[in-house]
Formats: sequence, structure tokens, C-alpha cells
Amino acid sequence: MSNRRKNELVDPKEVPKAVVSRLSLYLRELQHLRLNESTVSSGTLGQKLGFSDAQVRRDLAYFGHFGQPGVGYRIDELIDAIRRILGTDRKWRVAMVGVGNLGRALLGYRGFSSQGFTIVAAFDVDSSKVGRLVEGVQVYSLGELELVVREKQIELGLLAVPGKNAQQAADRLVQAGVSGILNFAPVTLNLPDNVSHIGVDLATELEQLCFSVANRTPED
Amino acid sequence: MSNRRKNELVDPKEVPKAVVSRLSLYLRELQHLRLNESTVSSGTLGQKLGFSDAQVRRDLAYFGHFGQPGVGYRIDELIDAIRRILGTDRKWRVAMVGVGNLGRALLGYRGFSSQGFTIVAAFDVDSSKVGRLVEGVQVYSLGELELVVREKQIELGLLAVPGKNAQQAADRLVQAGVSGILNFAPVTLNLPDNVSHIGVDLATELEQLCFSVANRTPED
Repeated sequence: MSNRRKNELVDPKEVPKAVVSRLSLYLRELQHLRLNESTVSSGTLGQKLGFSDAQVRRDLAYFGHFGQPGVGYRIDELIDAIRRILGTDRKWRVAMVGVGNLGRALLGYRGFSSQGFTIVAAFDVDSSKVGRLVEGVQVYSLGELELVVREKQIELGLLAVPGKNAQQAADRLVQAGVSGILNFAPVTLNLPDNVSHIGVDLATELEQLCFSVANRTPED
Repeated sequence: MSNRRKNELVDPKEVPKAVVSRLSLYLRELQHLRLNESTVSSGTLGQKLGFSDAQVRRDLAYFGHFGQPGVGYRIDELIDAIRRILGTDRKWRVAMVGVGNLGRALLGYRGFSSQGFTIVAAFDVDSSKVGRLVEGVQVYSLGELELVVREKQIELGLLAVPGKNAQQAADRLVQAGVSGILNFAPVTLNLPDNVSHIGVDLATELEQLCFSVANRTPED
């Protein structure tokens, strides 16, 4: 496997979404493990997350050759590699649109900055919020969105506005030039193909949990 | 396909997670479509979500025979069927543990109640919050957790406490008898096999977005 050439790897766009989402889980677990260990086996890494060692090796094989027999993965190296693959080996500049309860919670969410995301501006229609700092982030009026996004070279947008305002706010982020939108509003956005967007529907997560509970048998 | 028998269906526990998570997406889209339509084709449903018609049909085929050639799916019927599959064709009683910014946002998140989840109690260590109503939900002290969870027959827990307190809070939910936990704290929980749990790491979602942006080619 060590002579695998780069051009034998799968095109990243062809990698199944489930594999990419497990990369984030591996990354987070490795970041915890790093505090006490310098290497980890695929078995240990998988076991911490409820996956088999084969699953871990198969997922990583999409992106190259990692780890050594008898040694396992060097944790620091694998962290660096996964961040390179995900694109989080550099800082990303992010805008928050909507500073209600959810927006406020997201502004205070420490997990973003620790993974390389910096929220550099927030926007809201409520004039009582405009001009204030919330969780250390300046709140601008929605009317300033295009200007501020361009000036601050913002690349990603977090959308936490009511559903009925989400498409319009997303359109404005796109016009201002962001490349990706993480949408917390409970609507499906219609956006041009050259803008990535992911919808986070928190009820979906609860439904997945329900499915798992409902299909559990007593002897599980 | 119409002669497919029930016992030819896959055991729900063997259905890939990605399929189950698409069921939630189908459900949400159908709930929107229902406002204006009574039937929908697999092509239209898929197209709204960026999936092929074949993907839609393949996903649904795990669970039975739905839809008719030339007619498509009857939206109301398919909504009922998906809710039955997910287990959300009944109400679920939910506890919120942690009433910080995120907990508060989750308490106010309308998407939960519209999908059948009722948050019937919230818990926090902060005595200034205990005894108050937040977004209409009574806040109890963490010390009352076991008692209240049992009395109110709470089945699911939402965990939005700091990472360092998450395992202990989860253990207490489990001891009180909940069947599933949706964990927003940025740690992996160790829980008994008979309790379902899903971790929601919001930075993960941003990483997935980054991967998509970073692997986009100009001609996309």
C-alpha cells in the first residue's frame, strides 16, 4: 500500500458523504487522544466511536496511506492530514446572520474557533441589537451585509433567521460572495450550483434518535 | 414489486444510517409540498433535495412498497408511513439538560414540537434559573433530575451542558430511565448499549461544508 500513487486516490467529490462526516468524528477523537497519547491503532480509534477497525482503515484509504503496521497512526500526523483533507488546515472567516437565541448560542459556541472558524461579523434586523457586541462579535444591520462581507472577506455564512426570511438572506450572502452556507433555518434553500450549502435541521437529529430507540429490541 | 412481502424487508437495524437520515429530509420536504400538492413523483421529490429519483425509490424500498406508476406518491400517505418508520407517529417527552445560550435556543426551537417532540422539563445548576419558565418550560435544579424524569415519564434527553459535565449528566439521565440522548456537548459519551445516543457537533457541520467548498472546482 505504501507505493499507492496520488492519482490512484478517489476524486474528493466522489467520496461518500458518510465517509467525510466520519473524518470529523475521527478528528475530534484524535484531538482528545492527543492529550495523552502520541499514536493510536485503527482498532482503538474505531472502538471509541463505535466503528470497526476495518471501517476506519477503509475510510482513510480514500485519501492516502496512513499509519504503520505495529505502530498505528501517529496522532499529530493524522490530525494534520484530516484537517488538510477537510480544508480546515487554515482559518475560515464566517458571518452569522440572525442573532436570536440560536444565533447567540452559535456566537458563543467554542467548538467553532477551536476548529479554525472565526465569526467576524453578525447581522440582524433588530435595531436594538445593531452596533452591539454579542459574545465579542460586532452586530451589523442586515442592510450592511454585502458591504461588510466584502470588506471582511467573509467566506462562509451561518444562517439562523426565521424560515420565511432564510432564502432572501441566503441570496444576499451569495451575492456578497460567500462560498458556503450552513443553514439552521427549517427550509430547503435554492442556491446556485457554485455555492455549497448544508442544512442543519435539529429535529432531524431527534428523529434519527427516535428511529434508533424505536427499533431497539429488548435484548440489545 | 407490489407483491413484496413484509418479511422480505430489511431489519430496521440493518438499514444504513444515511438512508434513515434521508427519510427525515424526505419527510420535511413532503410536509412543505403538502401545502400545495397531494401527490409527488420520486423525480420531483429527489430533485428538490438534490437526489436522483432512483435514490428516492431505493431508500423507500427498504421499508415497503410506496407509490404507484404514473401517480407517484400520495403525500399524506407517505408522510404517515415515514413517521411510522421513524417512530415519530406519536409524541415523545423530552428533557433539556443545560439552560445556557444553546439550551435556551433549543427550548425555543419550533421545529421540535412540530415534529412531535415536547420538551416537558429543563434542568440547570444555576439557582437563578431554577423555578423559572424559559420559553414556556419549567426549569428544575439538576438535583431533581431523577425525580422529575420519572414523574413526567420523560423518554429522551437533550444535553447542552459544558463538555466537562456531559458524561455525568448523561449518566444521571440514563439512571433515571431515558432511552435516548441527543448530545450537543463536544465530547463522546460512554453509555450502556441499551441507550441510544447521537452526538451533534456543530463544528462538524461546518467542516463538512468546508470540505465541499474546498473540493469544488471552478467549473462546478
